[in-house]
Amino acid sequence: MRILVVNPNSTVSMTAKIGTAARRVARSGTEIVAVNPKDAPASIQGFHDIAMCLPALLGELRGHGRCDAVVIACFDDTGLDAARCAVDVPVIGIGEAAFHAASFISCRFSVVTTLRRSVPSIEANLVRYGLAARCGRVRASDIPVLALEEAGPDMMERLGREIEMAIDEDQAEAIVLGCAGMADMAAGLAERYGLPVVEGVSSAVLMAEAMAASGLKTSRIGGYAAAN
Amino acid sequence: MRILVVNPNSTVSMTAKIGTAARRVARSGTEIVAVNPKDAPASIQGFHDIAMCLPALLGELRGHGRCDAVVIACFDDTGLDAARCAVDVPVIGIGEAAFHAASFISCRFSVVTTLRRSVPSIEANLVRYGLAARCGRVRASDIPVLALEEAGPDMMERLGREIEMAIDEDQAEAIVLGCAGMADMAAGLAERYGLPVVEGVSSAVLMAEAMAASGLKTSRIGGYAAAN
Amino acid sequence: MRILVVNPNSTVSMTAKIGTAARRVARSGTEIVAVNPKDAPASIQGFHDIAMCLPALLGELRGHGRCDAVVIACFDDTGLDAARCAVDVPVIGIGEAAFHAASFISCRFSVVTTLRRSVPSIEANLVRYGLAARCGRVRASDIPVLALEEAGPDMMERLGREIEMAIDEDQAEAIVLGCAGMADMAAGLAERYGLPVVEGVSSAVLMAEAMAASGLKTSRIGGYAAAN
Amino acid sequence: MRILVVNPNSTVSMTAKIGTAARRVARSGTEIVAVNPKDAPASIQGFHDIAMCLPALLGELRGHGRCDAVVIACFDDTGLDAARCAVDVPVIGIGEAAFHAASFISCRFSVVTTLRRSVPSIEANLVRYGLAARCGRVRASDIPVLALEEAGPDMMERLGREIEMAIDEDQAEAIVLGCAGMADMAAGLAERYGLPVVEGVSSAVLMAEAMAASGLKTSRIGGYAAAN
Amino acid sequence: MRILVVNPNSTVSMTAKIGTAARRVARSGTEIVAVNPKDAPASIQGFHDIAMCLPALLGELRGHGRCDAVVIACFDDTGLDAARCAVDVPVIGIGEAAFHAASFISCRFSVVTTLRRSVPSIEANLVRYGLAARCGRVRASDIPVLALEEAGPDMMERLGREIEMAIDEDQAEAIVLGCAGMADMAAGLAERYGLPVVEGVSSAVLMAEAMAASGLKTSRIGGYAAAN
Amino acid sequence: MRILVVNPNSTVSMTAKIGTAARRVARSGTEIVAVNPKDAPASIQGFHDIAMCLPALLGELRGHGRCDAVVIACFDDTGLDAARCAVDVPVIGIGEAAFHAASFISCRFSVVTTLRRSVPSIEANLVRYGLAARCGRVRASDIPVLALEEAGPDMMERLGREIEMAIDEDQAEAIVLGCAGMADMAAGLAERYGLPVVEGVSSAVLMAEAMAASGLKTSRIGGYAAAN
Repeated sequence: MRILVVNPNSTVSMTAKIGTAARRVARSGTEIVAVNPKDAPASIQGFHDIAMCLPALLGELRGHGRCDAVVIACFDDTGLDAARCAVDVPVIGIGEAAFHAASFISCRFSVVTTLRRSVPSIEANLVRYGLAARCGRVRASDIPVLALEEAGPDMMERLGREIEMAIDEDQAEAIVLGCAGMADMAAGLAERYGLPVVEGVSSAVLMAEAMAASGLKTSRIGGYAAAN
Repeated sequence: MRILVVNPNSTVSMTAKIGTAARRVARSGTEIVAVNPKDAPASIQGFHDIAMCLPALLGELRGHGRCDAVVIACFDDTGLDAARCAVDVPVIGIGEAAFHAASFISCRFSVVTTLRRSVPSIEANLVRYGLAARCGRVRASDIPVLALEEAGPDMMERLGREIEMAIDEDQAEAIVLGCAGMADMAAGLAERYGLPVVEGVSSAVLMAEAMAASGLKTSRIGGYAAAN
Repeated sequence: MRILVVNPNSTVSMTAKIGTAARRVARSGTEIVAVNPKDAPASIQGFHDIAMCLPALLGELRGHGRCDAVVIACFDDTGLDAARCAVDVPVIGIGEAAFHAASFISCRFSVVTTLRRSVPSIEANLVRYGLAARCGRVRASDIPVLALEEAGPDMMERLGREIEMAIDEDQAEAIVLGCAGMADMAAGLAERYGLPVVEGVSSAVLMAEAMAASGLKTSRIGGYAAAN
Repeated sequence: MRILVVNPNSTVSMTAKIGTAARRVARSGTEIVAVNPKDAPASIQGFHDIAMCLPALLGELRGHGRCDAVVIACFDDTGLDAARCAVDVPVIGIGEAAFHAASFISCRFSVVTTLRRSVPSIEANLVRYGLAARCGRVRASDIPVLALEEAGPDMMERLGREIEMAIDEDQAEAIVLGCAGMADMAAGLAERYGLPVVEGVSSAVLMAEAMAASGLKTSRIGGYAAAN
Repeated sequence: MRILVVNPNSTVSMTAKIGTAARRVARSGTEIVAVNPKDAPASIQGFHDIAMCLPALLGELRGHGRCDAVVIACFDDTGLDAARCAVDVPVIGIGEAAFHAASFISCRFSVVTTLRRSVPSIEANLVRYGLAARCGRVRASDIPVLALEEAGPDMMERLGREIEMAIDEDQAEAIVLGCAGMADMAAGLAERYGLPVVEGVSSAVLMAEAMAASGLKTSRIGGYAAAN
Repeated sequence: MRILVVNPNSTVSMTAKIGTAARRVARSGTEIVAVNPKDAPASIQGFHDIAMCLPALLGELRGHGRCDAVVIACFDDTGLDAARCAVDVPVIGIGEAAFHAASFISCRFSVVTTLRRSVPSIEANLVRYGLAARCGRVRASDIPVLALEEAGPDMMERLGREIEMAIDEDQAEAIVLGCAGMADMAAGLAERYGLPVVEGVSSAVLMAEAMAASGLKTSRIGGYAAAN
């Protein structure tokens, strides 16, 4: 099996982190192809970045050979619907997958993401997926996406404060980390705070493998009619 | 007052139709600047077109001089959130405005749009705005966007069939026409079927004038933080 | 254009304040006719007042000459549905208009109103309009309606405390002032707290002008069938 | 126990029908006091009638001696919230009670009411109570309220057609009759169509007795603060 | 009238408390038959207990003679839907009844229950009944069910703290006590905190009497088709 | 990897069909252990069967050796929450998994299940999961569960009629088959009707493998606290 994982921003260290997180959980026979466009914003923070990165992201769907599924590695699930019209194989977003995975192991989860400006698009996605019913709150840690590339104990502390508040104020039973750049922090945070911490890259790669194995393809008779 | 009206597709006859509909209702002192990008899809039908037209649409926000408000003249409200981050003046989408206007004059409205593939994004917008609470159903007339440019009685008939079903099956009290290209049909359909028919271009221009006169500006402290 | 603005309570100083707020934003060619019944409660606070003022409010819809739209200047949108059955021209409530305006410039707003007893009817309206999806919380400042007639810095301080909590606890990006008597405070609060503050009288007058210019009339085929 | 049952319209034959329906189910020791204002519309059909009848309805809450609970015998639950502010004893609306009763014996119910113009206020109540979650559809039979006073087999037939459609199209498991004037038809319709048919007058009287026996009183610390 | 009240746990002191609460409000001619299975968990705390007690609970529906209605005296409304398929008479759950009763006397209520693990099933029930629309929050007091059998002032204090927070943080206007074992505390808490405190056993017995008197039976044409 | 798949009914031919469907999609290194209790209803149809089968189903969770995940192979997701409290490994229901899978490849799906009495519990699950937002309608084919064991072209025809109506009336873009006994029909129906047909056994086994590989465990800090 071959899974294409597209990071829509141009920061190669994030693409590498994403690839590592993907390979950690993927099946032994699965090849992970982690890519990013060259001509794209360095990070996706907020509605304007989400809009500007779309054509380049969609351009990355082709040119990497046959694949069995696609993962969009931006927690906003940028371009998810457009991608489903553009390729025949299943497409999964990392935000989407993390929400679904958290729904299997908790009655309620909270999301901890980067900046306040990123919160509304995540909230809108939760409503669209129906999974707002399972989410206590989407919290901003005030850590810019690119600051995660210099991750250190300070990052863990700042995320940890939001996690503690989520458990106490939101009655969260699990945490979803709201940025691809947090992929390598999940295990440490779960151990420290004693609850499941879900990370989207691994969740999406596993869901993508599952959908590829199912034989199911994106429906062509409605909103996902094939792009011309 | 000066209102910029952006048609995100490249079909100049639609831009002209949009400009005419805008000027029909605008205040006498308002200048309507109706534009479209050169490098954009000929029509916006479905998620993929919506994604691909965004950078060109956002590019049109600048370069037309000072304006007091912006209207996005695509019924999907393409790029609405991104545009609100990009400019200081209020931005209104024609789908959004039509839904709000219909809410002021009816207990329930139905939408009649073009193709089936365009329905899910409109439904998603209604949910996001909260106005799904006011909508009976989003109906597809199976008329491609560009076919509206050759409008004739056949178009009116096909839209009329959906309108009759909306009144009978959805208990709709008003109709919202779900495409900028239907702008010139509203009055005729209202007269024939005896209920209000709301069209988005005029609704949005009027709302844009209202917001410009209010002095209110898009909030910068959350999701609409200024784009870098 | 001629807009009738009805204050359902009998406090003439509030009617004057409402008229001033309306004229500040209305088009140069628009005549604002601000009225209140003689025989009505001095203020509308809670469900009982809302019910008792209705026949007098509806009586004010006639007798002031031809108008192009009507504004109901009570934040509870008292009698809005009944008024839509009683007159042919569009009717807009100031609560309704403020919510719609706030939806155009923010991802989430909170309302700050007068007494705790007034909160549930505002919440019920938000649900009915569908705009509860856009509201963080409806907050009570514990300021009685008539105390606003003696507005001073103390009023601004008390409202300000709720505004600060709304930004911090509700993640509000804009504030809606929840009483016609707060009409003259919006600009000062917006400047002090650095976010949009929406006031209903001006929002409703602008929406009323927009609807009057649209040519759209209230639908007669459902809930707003003409009153006998 | 003494239950005050207020018919907000002035049609005495309906008040008599209401009183009969109430006494049929009330406890042996309960006195039913069925009244109507003299100065009120002959029937309540639509938003305008609902508004105009309120002061007279609220006036009937006093002057009939001590009672243990109040029933508002108009399916729109006209003035329910205002009445709860005006008296100390529990107040139940017949629409409200019918919805609650139907929720105890079915997974989904549909409502069959009189005119199309009456449907939106019933739908709004269902949403406010939360019980829209349990309702398939609110159907109009096109029978004016006063026509029910001349009830005959034709009435049963017309209601029956909507009931059959509700079972088939809405997957309704029970029917709620949406007008006080239908009170005497429930048993016959239940027998003919083989499913529970819930009528609001008897439901509300039984709920009123239950609440009076409970010792619970309307809360005074929020929206139902005592009217001045 | 004869009402069967089933306590699904095997703690006889709770069954006695339940019987006492039931008889305090029941009509003078009503016989309360309070029972519990012998072979059942000592208390119902969480999803696993809810599942394990079901066959024994359903077994108690028979063997106690003819009854006119059944009350399930576990705040989770354990087995409510199954019981409605198993017997012909109406079945009411104490959680369900408490929510309905609170809806008649307040605009918003909060629930105070025992352990955190019991909160999600109560929240799920509120959503299913539609009454989540009326609930501010479901709060856990951290008091195990069986600790209530040794009730003393400490219990009242702990519940009281949650009640105060509910009034302040949730804007609750009434409290619903979320465990059958709290049945004897309602009056004392209402007096101390000055708002209605609703208890499920008495609410359910009164609703059960009302439904028995109504003549309405559980619908057999949908989800509650008779069990084989 | 070892996945335990529990059929809660006692029909061994269904258990065999379930095992076959599971092995068709499972990874090459995964062992599927398909079991059913001896002492359980022959089929699960409706709320009463759901309740009665729970202790036996929960008893099957132990005694089959170490496993990495559990699948509950009843479309009602019977005992899902209880099972999550009883074992340490992830537990997935086949209804749940089918809804999640359908959400990845369509904007809207409809469910086609067996009897009308089974529809409400499926609808309740959809609401609980939040995925009711993605479902058009839950349709009953009137085929009893055990009749599927004698599957023939007649079964395909009857399901096909509901599928056609789902596409036409519900605007469904995918179909979810609503019974474990339909597991072997998905491919044939997809080919005949030209849209994705999702079957729960394979979906759940794939999700279970994904969750087992993720390292995520059910949260113990809320509703899924470990059963005593």
